[in-house]
Amino acid sequence: MRSGAWRRELTDELGQGLPPGRLVTDPGVIPSYAHDEAEWAPYGTPAAVVRPRTAEEVRHAVRFCLRLGAPIVPRGAGTGLSGGANAVEDCVILSTEAMTAIKEIDARERLAVVEPGVVNDHLRAACAEQGLWYPPDPASAPWSTLGGNVATNAGGLCCVKYGVTRDYVLGLEFVTGTGELVRVGRRTAKGVAGYDLAGLMVGSEGTLGVITEITVRLRPAREPEHTVAGHFSSVVDAGHAVAAVAEAGLIPSALELVDRHCLAAVDEWKHMGLSTEAEVLLLGRTDSAGPAGELEADAMLACFERAGATYAVRSTDQYEAEALFEARRLAYPALERLGPVLTEDVCVPRSAVPEMLARIEETATRHDTLIANIAHAGDGNLHPLLITRPGDEASKRRAQAAFEDVIAAALRLGGTVTGEHGVGLLKRDGFTAEAGPAVLALNRAVKDALDPRGIFNPGKVVA
Amino acid sequence: MRSGAWRRELTDELGQGLPPGRLVTDPGVIPSYAHDEAEWAPYGTPAAVVRPRTAEEVRHAVRFCLRLGAPIVPRGAGTGLSGGANAVEDCVILSTEAMTAIKEIDARERLAVVEPGVVNDHLRAACAEQGLWYPPDPASAPWSTLGGNVATNAGGLCCVKYGVTRDYVLGLEFVTGTGELVRVGRRTAKGVAGYDLAGLMVGSEGTLGVITEITVRLRPAREPEHTVAGHFSSVVDAGHAVAAVAEAGLIPSALELVDRHCLAAVDEWKHMGLSTEAEVLLLGRTDSAGPAGELEADAMLACFERAGATYAVRSTDQYEAEALFEARRLAYPALERLGPVLTEDVCVPRSAVPEMLARIEETATRHDTLIANIAHAGDGNLHPLLITRPGDEASKRRAQAAFEDVIAAALRLGGTVTGEHGVGLLKRDGFTAEAGPAVLALNRAVKDALDPRGIFNPGKVVA
Repeated sequence: MRSGAWRRELTDELGQGLPPGRLVTDPGVIPSYAHDEAEWAPYGTPAAVVRPRTAEEVRHAVRFCLRLGAPIVPRGAGTGLSGGANAVEDCVILSTEAMTAIKEIDARERLAVVEPGVVNDHLRAACAEQGLWYPPDPASAPWSTLGGNVATNAGGLCCVKYGVTRDYVLGLEFVTGTGELVRVGRRTAKGVAGYDLAGLMVGSEGTLGVITEITVRLRPAREPEHTVAGHFSSVVDAGHAVAAVAEAGLIPSALELVDRHCLAAVDEWKHMGLSTEAEVLLLGRTDSAGPAGELEADAMLACFERAGATYAVRSTDQYEAEALFEARRLAYPALERLGPVLTEDVCVPRSAVPEMLARIEETATRHDTLIANIAHAGDGNLHPLLITRPGDEASKRRAQAAFEDVIAAALRLGGTVTGEHGVGLLKRDGFTAEAGPAVLALNRAVKDALDPRGIFNPGKVVA
Repeated sequence: MRSGAWRRELTDELGQGLPPGRLVTDPGVIPSYAHDEAEWAPYGTPAAVVRPRTAEEVRHAVRFCLRLGAPIVPRGAGTGLSGGANAVEDCVILSTEAMTAIKEIDARERLAVVEPGVVNDHLRAACAEQGLWYPPDPASAPWSTLGGNVATNAGGLCCVKYGVTRDYVLGLEFVTGTGELVRVGRRTAKGVAGYDLAGLMVGSEGTLGVITEITVRLRPAREPEHTVAGHFSSVVDAGHAVAAVAEAGLIPSALELVDRHCLAAVDEWKHMGLSTEAEVLLLGRTDSAGPAGELEADAMLACFERAGATYAVRSTDQYEAEALFEARRLAYPALERLGPVLTEDVCVPRSAVPEMLARIEETATRHDTLIANIAHAGDGNLHPLLITRPGDEASKRRAQAAFEDVIAAALRLGGTVTGEHGVGLLKRDGFTAEAGPAVLALNRAVKDALDPRGIFNPGKVVA
């Protein structure tokens, strides 16, 4: 722990080099920056919070911290689920939330240039006005920012067809570990000049630099989607439907699984009148244009039925379809209302989805832990949500044991410990197991090369 | 230059550790491994060529070279156009051409696992048998290998819609700069565990390791394409048609430009009876299913006509359409028959294509140099081909000056010096100009981190 004098020096000097209002030292405000949504992971108390408005201010703060040896924890909206934005003791939280300019949307080149604090949904709305579409749609899209999305390589619902954040990042501006402001990547459709540093920054969870500007690729606005909904009497049956969709060669624009624990929690909160007759709801979508879309929706429906759906239907009402997907997006916050939630993010081969869901059920029983399931099922990316009772330490310990078992099961099935949430703190042990010593050493070598002083988000991703 | 004794030690000992036939020291064979298709770039004489058949043999060779301090130049089929596989004096050429196994094609997971020596077209054919498709299709696809495609992040014709090699690489096995065999990436649809080392290896041109196995993502086989052909009286008019297609929000599955120099050279070689009435041929394709494809083809045709096509037609004959694209693919080898060709690979924003084409024409006139044009026009990725007369040193110097001017023009228009061929040796100065010192230093830091002894392909990409 640093001395009070060190902390005073830090805040006095850091504040002097920045316009008024950028530095936050109010002890009433600072705790709200101490962690992201992964409260389960450890966090310390930040010495200060900086909310810069320009790249130059970011550079100033980084250079200052380099001089003083103060660790920097970059932060977007704090909606992360792995503790990647959790404070280390006496760090400077560098929040890009105030850098909210959409600098450019170029319809001809189909790209947008934004500051890192732009909220995902705001960018999507601005693009839609010009007949364009920014696909990556994490469930946190109403709150999470592009900077955080890039730092975690955020996925979402549509990535089963359209890919993840990395697939849309063309170029980045960021402040490096030596305090320089650089641009990597490009504005052109293609480019192979040098190593893919823009790609390397994506998903690096704030450990290699602070992003100050993002150039993303856009797509033309797409056709309205067709929605297929199916009820299943077990998650395993629903998993078989998911495997059947993949085997049929279909590429849905979304394929989401929500179990009854989630549906009940959403209903309890939002009174959406969702059916709780189903053990599991599977939601499929296709956005292929014209008759192809009709055929694909019918084919998906047939897959649901063959896998044993107790009820399956093509939704003809866009409002109803939207409500179903809204329920999917609200599942996580709805469950959080019930008690501390430990969020899993394993991703397994598509064909292993039924087996993985069975092992999750078995794990829940063995550890006497309530595990709710939401899943980007079409990607094999499952989010078992381990729910504990507030203040019940024994249930917390059981949940933690179940968490480790789910990770181990995913690795045994050829999966990864994190599909889209990132390693942060919660998945550091899992990542170590997944990568093995040689690959971990390569990760460490990259970290040391680009952050030679080790000031960016120490302890995250690589220990 | 190393001593003869050093070279003898190298070949004796290296050969002893490998099965018979892996080590090539025949002075009649070695020169064929001295350079890729970029003869213009400098190259030395290899001390030896190794053609391993297993990852273990690759590791053996790398460890041996590490011990002896011998530089390693990894090589695929040698179809590169930037000198990335050109030998440095007394290096060991590590050719992966004999590692030709397609280890697995998994229709359910839509992925393939291949050794690096698998020829692109062979993989595509094997996938097609299972109703699957590996999209990246460089014009060299009949000869180039997956290892080389990955090392250069190869593009091709369909990447205007389907992306480049990086978009399909899920995982890699490779031998590191410390002689370890590692696996990075994954087999799952998504994954964010640690830095994107697989993505970093893609396009690293053999400077960070030797790839021994590649896991690629596949797509379902697609619908037959609709082809639109247009004749234009100038490259600039054709450029306007390209810009019009982008502005109309169309995403063609190919949009290729071929000028009359190329058409004439192909005709002279292959007697394909191509029209030489057109100054420029523009070939567009769409593979959207059903009526959507029809509509898109019609819309593309209208763009061609509005931009001033002297003749434009939707091809109804698949054989004729294939012949036109075959002519496109043969343009480069056909021109090579006329004399040494210096190949450009600039990529500019789509809307800058007409301006860039105009500047290329102006450059050709100014330097009295014949410049033929082929282009992945829909991507803004242009391949001006600078043709010299064999043995004419003055024309070679003029071509080199024109080459530099084309690069400078592309950078001024917001472009990059290399869209898909790589930096190698030919684009090293251009890359230095494009990146600037801070980004160059980051590239160098990554190189030093992953190849600490500097044995992999020294002097390529980063000087």
